[in-house]
Amino acid sequence: MDLYQFEMSPNAKRVRVVAAELGIPLQVKSLDFRSAENKQPDYLAKNPNGKVPTLVDGDFTLWESPAICFYLARKAGKLLGSDPQSEADAVRWMTWNASHFEPHLFTVVFERMFKPMRGGQPDQAKIDHAMKDVERYARILDQQLTGRDWVTGALSIADIAIATSVELAQMAQVDFAPYQAITAWLGRVRERPSWKA
Amino acid sequence: MDLYQFEMSPNAKRVRVVAAELGIPLQVKSLDFRSAENKQPDYLAKNPNGKVPTLVDGDFTLWESPAICFYLARKAGKLLGSDPQSEADAVRWMTWNASHFEPHLFTVVFERMFKPMRGGQPDQAKIDHAMKDVERYARILDQQLTGRDWVTGALSIADIAIATSVELAQMAQVDFAPYQAITAWLGRVRERPSWKA
Repeated sequence: MDLYQFEMSPNAKRVRVVAAELGIPLQVKSLDFRSAENKQPDYLAKNPNGKVPTLVDGDFTLWESPAICFYLARKAGKLLGSDPQSEADAVRWMTWNASHFEPHLFTVVFERMFKPMRGGQPDQAKIDHAMKDVERYARILDQQLTGRDWVTGALSIADIAIATSVELAQMAQVDFAPYQAITAWLGRVRERPSWKA
Repeated sequence: MDLYQFEMSPNAKRVRVVAAELGIPLQVKSLDFRSAENKQPDYLAKNPNGKVPTLVDGDFTLWESPAICFYLARKAGKLLGSDPQSEADAVRWMTWNASHFEPHLFTVVFERMFKPMRGGQPDQAKIDHAMKDVERYARILDQQLTGRDWVTGALSIADIAIATSVELAQMAQVDFAPYQAITAWLGRVRERPSWKA
């Protein structure tokens, strides 16, 4: 299988970690962000959104990283449970991350990391606004992880998906130290050989 | 199964339509938005985000409408295909809607419908900005639906999820007439007995 990605994308990293966890080898094809390789006709034919990552498995092309994680796990019969309730539980927490947690984390990442790279100034009002939502949702995740090793009980694609968002936010100085259960869980995720690979 | 919802929520509507399509009866429990029933301890114990909808199926409680649609379809063995590729395809388009299309549609809905209800003025700059993304993603959906009756080929939870977002946007005067394939597809969705119910 081929994975088209940017080196720094947390959305691509979660797919690489899931594949490593499942023992699925991927041919990683890194696109050049500066030359906007993701906006060229060749790539847009694979993914009309011009976003990464995109997985190509024979004649099946798939994008949206939660869908790719779901696909690999479903195919391997691991990291997703084996009944509709545990599958839906993993899909729930991946959706929660993509819809509620990650957008606010990424607002902070954009303002503090990506905007300065382009010569812009971080907008502190936007950061403050986003941080209120980050804190609100971090409390929910922290509560869920209290007394659990993994978000849904057993290690699943949800842990890996959320952890890649949290890791990028940490690079942008979002402090998760007040959330003890999140901090302990992140330690467990980072200890996985799949994460280190 | 119990479904906690707001009457007007497109996120709740997609679950009701999926359940009707699958022949699954739901006990619908509508919360009172004005008294913030969704922020009371009873409800927060079911869904710590204080959002709707929430499904309660025996001792299993589930939230995030794409996850609920997935759960009902997976349980019934319909509207999702029967192999990892077709399941991932439906999850892909639901994720695409939740992460890329719907947020911009809802910005327009918020500015034109919800803000005036609270006595505010629509922010035209925000609407114009969101409409650029709405148009960008509507073109992608329109292209996907060209030559297809349903988003993934066969009717799936992705059609129902996306159609509820589009319907709400239409109420906020977002015009989909330029997108012929979307318009024809919406007509097909609306003809389903499950949609009319």
